[in-house]
Amino acid sequence: MDTEISSIGEFGLIDRLTKDFVPVNASTITGVGDDCAVMSYPDTEVLVTTDMLVEGIHFDLTYVPLKHLGYKSAIVNFSDIYAMNGTPRQITVSLGISTRFTVEHIEALYSGIKLACEIYGVDLVGGDTTASRSGLIISITCIGDAKKDSIVSRSGAKNTDLICVSGDLGAAYMGLQLLEREKVASAGQKDFVPKFEGKEYLVERQLKPEARRDIVNKLSEKRILPTSMIDISDGLSSELMHICKRSNVGCRIYEDRIPIDYQTAIMAEELGMNLVTAALNGGEDYELLFTVPLHCHDEIQSIEGIKVIGHITAPELGCAMITRDGNEMVLKAQGFNHMAQ
Amino acid sequence: MDTEISSIGEFGLIDRLTKDFVPVNASTITGVGDDCAVMSYPDTEVLVTTDMLVEGIHFDLTYVPLKHLGYKSAIVNFSDIYAMNGTPRQITVSLGISTRFTVEHIEALYSGIKLACEIYGVDLVGGDTTASRSGLIISITCIGDAKKDSIVSRSGAKNTDLICVSGDLGAAYMGLQLLEREKVASAGQKDFVPKFEGKEYLVERQLKPEARRDIVNKLSEKRILPTSMIDISDGLSSELMHICKRSNVGCRIYEDRIPIDYQTAIMAEELGMNLVTAALNGGEDYELLFTVPLHCHDEIQSIEGIKVIGHITAPELGCAMITRDGNEMVLKAQGFNHMAQ
Repeated sequence: MDTEISSIGEFGLIDRLTKDFVPVNASTITGVGDDCAVMSYPDTEVLVTTDMLVEGIHFDLTYVPLKHLGYKSAIVNFSDIYAMNGTPRQITVSLGISTRFTVEHIEALYSGIKLACEIYGVDLVGGDTTASRSGLIISITCIGDAKKDSIVSRSGAKNTDLICVSGDLGAAYMGLQLLEREKVASAGQKDFVPKFEGKEYLVERQLKPEARRDIVNKLSEKRILPTSMIDISDGLSSELMHICKRSNVGCRIYEDRIPIDYQTAIMAEELGMNLVTAALNGGEDYELLFTVPLHCHDEIQSIEGIKVIGHITAPELGCAMITRDGNEMVLKAQGFNHMAQ
Repeated sequence: MDTEISSIGEFGLIDRLTKDFVPVNASTITGVGDDCAVMSYPDTEVLVTTDMLVEGIHFDLTYVPLKHLGYKSAIVNFSDIYAMNGTPRQITVSLGISTRFTVEHIEALYSGIKLACEIYGVDLVGGDTTASRSGLIISITCIGDAKKDSIVSRSGAKNTDLICVSGDLGAAYMGLQLLEREKVASAGQKDFVPKFEGKEYLVERQLKPEARRDIVNKLSEKRILPTSMIDISDGLSSELMHICKRSNVGCRIYEDRIPIDYQTAIMAEELGMNLVTAALNGGEDYELLFTVPLHCHDEIQSIEGIKVIGHITAPELGCAMITRDGNEMVLKAQGFNHMAQ
C-alpha cells in the first residue's frame, strides 16, 4: 500500500494519475500527454482563473483528508468561473510533493479532483508534477467559457441595484475553528474521537465546499443577468468592497438579512466569537455575491437559496452595514489575508 | 528599500506588481482584476501549458538573481507553446512567498517576467499570490494559439523522417555544474569572485534561456511543417523517446552530429564528465527537437541554427545512438527526474 513515488518516477506517476480521466467537453481537443493541451472555443469567450493552495497555509493534513483536499482545490477554481457567469471546462493540475507522500497519497488527492471534475463536467487536460522541499503545493488553473453578452464582471453594479447572496455565510470559518479546536484537544491522545455531533454542516462546509452552479443556472432560467458578481472566498465584506471599488459605487447591507445557519450561530456562541464578524470576514464560503437591477426584486425573492441583503448606493455614501440597532457600521476588507503576519 | 509584504497586503502587492503590464494581444479581452481573465479565440485553437518551479528543487537563490528567475519561469512556458508550433499570448502567475521575501524581491522577480512578456509579446492576465511556509514557489500557466492545421504534436513522426534539433545541447547543464562549483568554492569567503571567464555562455544558458520563436518562424517562412515537435527540457534522450513512444516509431541519431558548443566541451573536460551524457541527458536546453519529411533535407540544411542529427525508423528497431566508433548505444530516458531525487 506504500509505493514510493521515486519507484515509478514522474512520468509513471502522471500516467497512473491521469489514465482514468475521460474528456466530456467538445472544447477539449487533446489533453494530457503533449507540450500543451489543445482546446477550441470558436463561438464563446475563454475564461481563465488560477489558485494555489499551500500546506501549512491553506490546509492542515492533520484533519483534512487528501480526497477532500483534491475536491476542494478543484471547486475553488470552478467557483471563480461561475462567478463570471461562465461554465468551467478544463483544468490543469500542478503539484509540488515532498518525500513523505506516497503514490497512494497522491492517488487519494486525485480521486477528489476526479470526483469534482465528474460532478461539474470538467476535463483534466494537463499539469506539472515536481518535488517540493517541504509539504504539498497544489496549483490549479481552470479554463471555462461564456457567451460574450452574458459575462458578468465585478464592475457593473449600479446605484439602486439589489445586493444578493446565495446560501449562508460564516459556516466554513466556524468549521475551521471547530477542526482546530478538536486538533488541539486530540494532542497526545491515541483513540481520540472528535466532537462533531450537531456540527456536521460546519465541518462539511470547511472540508467539502461546492461551487454554486445551481444558482447560476437558476438565474439563467429566470433570464436574470446580474449586473456584477463575485464569489465569496475572502469574506462578504472584502468581496463587497471589491465590487463597490470596481463599479465605483457605495452600498448598504443589513445585518439582520445576512443569511447564517443555526449551527454557525451555536458554534460562535460556544467559542465566544462575534457571529456577524464571522459571517462578514470568515471566508471560504464560496457562495455567490451579486447585484441585480431593482425591478428584479420579486423574481429574485422567489428563487430558493438567494437572499437580498441590501442595495447599491452612490459612491459618496461609502460601504456600510446597518446593524440590528439601526446604526451604520463602516465595512472593512479585513478578510482572509494570508500575507499578513 | 525593504518593504515587508504584510505592510501592503496581498491586494496591495498585486496592484504594485501588475500595474505596468499593458496588454498587446487582440485575444486578451480583460486581464488582472476580476474572478477570471477573459480571452477570445474565434479563429484559432487554444493551447495551454503549465510549469511549477520550487525553490531548492529547480533553483538556488544563492546564485540565481530573482530577475533572471522571473524571466526563465516565463520562458519555459513559452517554449512549450512554441513546441506545438503555436504563439504564446497570455500567462497567469501564481506565487507562494515565504516571509523572508520583501516587496522589492518580488518586484525584481516580476521585472524578469515583464521583460520576457515584452520580448515575446505575451500578456499577464491573472494569478494568485499567497504565503508559503518555506521558500519561493512559482507556478505559471501560459495560454497560446495556433491554426488548427498547423499544430504540431509529439505523435506525428514517420519512418524515414529526419530528426532535427535547434541550437546546441548540454550548455545549460554545464552552466549549472559551474554555478554549483563556484557556490561551494565561495563558502565562507566574504569577497569571493566566481570564475566565469571564458564560460559566460554556459552561465547565460542556465540563468537566462530563450524560447526558440526564431526557429518556429524560420520553419514557417520556408513552409516546412514538422511532423512532430517537442522542446528539450529534460534532455535530448528523454524527449526523443517521448516522440518515438507517442509516434510508435524508432530512431537512430549520430553522436558526431549532436550540436555542442566548445565551452560545453571544455567544461566537461575540466569536470571530468562525459560530454555526450551531458548533451543527451543534461536538460534545460529549451531547444526544439522535431522531425520533418525526408524530402525537406536540403531546405532544412539551409536554415542556420538547425542540425539534422538522425532519422526515424520502424518501431521494431528501437531507439539508439550510433557512436563515433560505429557502435549502437540504446537510448535511455534518464533525463532530469526531480521525483527520483
